[in-house]
Amino acid sequence: MNRFKSIIAGLSEIVGPSGVLTESTDLVAYSYDGTSNWHATPDVVVLPTTTEQVAAVMQLAYDQEIPVTVRGAGTNLSGGSIPVEGGIVLCMTRMDRILDIDAANFTATVEVGVVLNKFNQALARQNLFFPPDPQSFLAATIGGCAAENSGGPYAVKYGIFKHYLLGMQIVLPGGRILNLGGKTVKNVTGYDLTLLLCGSEGTLAVITSVTLRLLPRPETRQTILAIFDEVTTAGGAVHRIRQSGLIPAKIEMIDNWIIRRIEEMSPLGLPRAAEAILLFELDGNSAAVENESREVIRLCREADAVDVRPAKDAEEAENFWAARRAGFSAIWGNSPTVLAEDVTVPTDRMAELISTIQTISRRHDVPVVMIGHAGDGNLHPCILTDKKNAEHFHRAEQVASEIFSTALALGGVISGEHGIGLEKKKFLKLAMEPGAIELLKSIKQVFDPKGLLNPGKIWEAGP
Amino acid sequence: MNRFKSIIAGLSEIVGPSGVLTESTDLVAYSYDGTSNWHATPDVVVLPTTTEQVAAVMQLAYDQEIPVTVRGAGTNLSGGSIPVEGGIVLCMTRMDRILDIDAANFTATVEVGVVLNKFNQALARQNLFFPPDPQSFLAATIGGCAAENSGGPYAVKYGIFKHYLLGMQIVLPGGRILNLGGKTVKNVTGYDLTLLLCGSEGTLAVITSVTLRLLPRPETRQTILAIFDEVTTAGGAVHRIRQSGLIPAKIEMIDNWIIRRIEEMSPLGLPRAAEAILLFELDGNSAAVENESREVIRLCREADAVDVRPAKDAEEAENFWAARRAGFSAIWGNSPTVLAEDVTVPTDRMAELISTIQTISRRHDVPVVMIGHAGDGNLHPCILTDKKNAEHFHRAEQVASEIFSTALALGGVISGEHGIGLEKKKFLKLAMEPGAIELLKSIKQVFDPKGLLNPGKIWEAGP
Repeated sequence: MNRFKSIIAGLSEIVGPSGVLTESTDLVAYSYDGTSNWHATPDVVVLPTTTEQVAAVMQLAYDQEIPVTVRGAGTNLSGGSIPVEGGIVLCMTRMDRILDIDAANFTATVEVGVVLNKFNQALARQNLFFPPDPQSFLAATIGGCAAENSGGPYAVKYGIFKHYLLGMQIVLPGGRILNLGGKTVKNVTGYDLTLLLCGSEGTLAVITSVTLRLLPRPETRQTILAIFDEVTTAGGAVHRIRQSGLIPAKIEMIDNWIIRRIEEMSPLGLPRAAEAILLFELDGNSAAVENESREVIRLCREADAVDVRPAKDAEEAENFWAARRAGFSAIWGNSPTVLAEDVTVPTDRMAELISTIQTISRRHDVPVVMIGHAGDGNLHPCILTDKKNAEHFHRAEQVASEIFSTALALGGVISGEHGIGLEKKKFLKLAMEPGAIELLKSIKQVFDPKGLLNPGKIWEAGP
Repeated sequence: MNRFKSIIAGLSEIVGPSGVLTESTDLVAYSYDGTSNWHATPDVVVLPTTTEQVAAVMQLAYDQEIPVTVRGAGTNLSGGSIPVEGGIVLCMTRMDRILDIDAANFTATVEVGVVLNKFNQALARQNLFFPPDPQSFLAATIGGCAAENSGGPYAVKYGIFKHYLLGMQIVLPGGRILNLGGKTVKNVTGYDLTLLLCGSEGTLAVITSVTLRLLPRPETRQTILAIFDEVTTAGGAVHRIRQSGLIPAKIEMIDNWIIRRIEEMSPLGLPRAAEAILLFELDGNSAAVENESREVIRLCREADAVDVRPAKDAEEAENFWAARRAGFSAIWGNSPTVLAEDVTVPTDRMAELISTIQTISRRHDVPVVMIGHAGDGNLHPCILTDKKNAEHFHRAEQVASEIFSTALALGGVISGEHGIGLEKKKFLKLAMEPGAIELLKSIKQVFDPKGLLNPGKIWEAGP
């Protein structure tokens, strides 16, 4: 206790007293993530405002051998930001300056606490655009997106976070500050450490700023909603459209459960019996978008869509997309505990994945609601359960386990964009060969020899 | 000698006698790369045909502590494939099977010996397209592209090799075979080892096959050639076009020296006095390409182009691009030794980079010819010299050194797409912080504890 008192005094000296939280009412706010499925309270929360402060905190933590768990807004969904061994939570939200938007070179450098939505608003004023769009974008920080290698609907056309990462500033355990990468797309100067850090879930170093590649804002966007009687029919439509050579910016799918919730909450006049809705966004040159929209509508009809509705204007388009996002909220509003999975399979196996999951759900009598990035094979089966009901929760975990096995059997992966974190670490062995897991652990050892940074994540303890 | 005899016998057992070369006339063919600037003869060349053979070779080499240098077609330009410590050259060109083209999922899995051009020909038959296009594509292997993280003209719109890498099979020093990644774009399962291997210049493991993301072949392509009186005027045109929100697939620049060589070799009727020519390719939906071509022509004229010529048809377009490639050959044909650099700067600093290099060239009285990927800031200043003239070569090396410093001072990097290899290893310290170089070395140690794989590359020996 006395030891921690002196540590807290040291931390206060580094970041000032307003940057250190120790009251239990404060600490509890940093004990969970976007799912509330795991809880662990830190001993202290530190909110730095500069890289130098981060370096000093890391040095103190290293000398005193205190675990450090880095986080942004905590919107993550696999437990990555939970301080399972207590110690320091290093919350980066006060490092929220946009350092540079270089419109001439289509790059930006930002501190990691910048909220993704705020970043895109600033870019829009200069007619620029940063595509990766995890659906937590209203709150998620750029640092969280970097640490988790975030995806989102735009991945179909634009790829994911790692495809836009050019450079970063990091602080190593021990406090050394390093600048990695640069601001050019082409850069082959030694191993690409920025891409090793991207998606490392805060286990290797603290990222303090990133330099990102930007795109010009597309001239036009068109949203199209298509309604289907069956999930497999919707899958057939996606296949036809992809094979035609079109690359929509987004292809999203929502299922019947969500359609009905949307109609309860904010009616769009969707047929409540529809098994699946596809939402497309096409973007780019106006003439191309016009041609391509016509083509998407035609192909959906050919694939037996019950109804196809192009959004009349930007407002209606925004309503459609708001409904998609509301669907996710509806899931949490309707269940005490949600296991939000993100298995990903080759696109043409998605219908098979969905129908297998429906069978698993029925067999264990556990509801599974499905939202999917149909364009890239990334499905979010949301398992509705209640942690307080041990028996039900056990069945839900069984469902999750079978969903992972199904995805792997279909040539897919256990996580497309949420990361392994706490939730999937016991399944890592199914998804990665032992030799590869050994390499991960050895690389961790290189960066963090004392094992202080975000301990207990990605792989299970032991040999 | 006796030791090597038994080693060669062991290698013959693994790959068969036809897969082992030991005659000095054979070995010399594996002693240099695309530049012929460095020479080192291996003790033996091994040509495996399966991953299992590679594993057995690596195990033998590990047990006997023999250096192994992996190579494909040897079209690389920074010395990466030179066996500076002798030992085994592991030549992957016989592992040249296209294992799978999955058109439904826009992925392909290929052995590393597949030649890039052959791969794209196979893809074209299924209306598919793999964008990374190093200008050695007629001979370069996919494995070389992976190890060097190759770029090319298409980087402007489509990015580089790492943006298309989904999975790989590797063999570690010691002989362990590992499968990494998968075949989905979204995959966050532990640290991304595939991206650590990509661009590692054959120093960490032997890549035996890769799984790549593909795109549908664009509906239309249009090439436009624009002629300028001055390099800075051409730079201004590139800036206007990029700021207009257009994203051409390629924006290439060639200088006056090359224009004159082209007119000597295969006249296109280019004005010999022109200081710079820009070559654009626009691709995608026909309507969009038509609109965008009009816009590029208009913007070039506004930016004071002397002449703007859209290619009449595919044949004329191919002639323009063949001239661009011939330019590169002309450089080698006109000089005993060429230092082919590939510094890269933020796009809007390219004109400044070029004019500074012109000054450096004049000051040292060493000719420097320039071909550039003007759309992404990647410039190829080709320094014309003669290794046999020690005094001239010394000045040429001085020019190279000043070019690197200039690129770094302009916020750029010393290598955009050729890699560090042998040529730039003494400059790595200028481009990367000491702490980052330590991390590279420690990662190397994790993969290759005996330091047998492609020794002597990327960084200089010593602490």
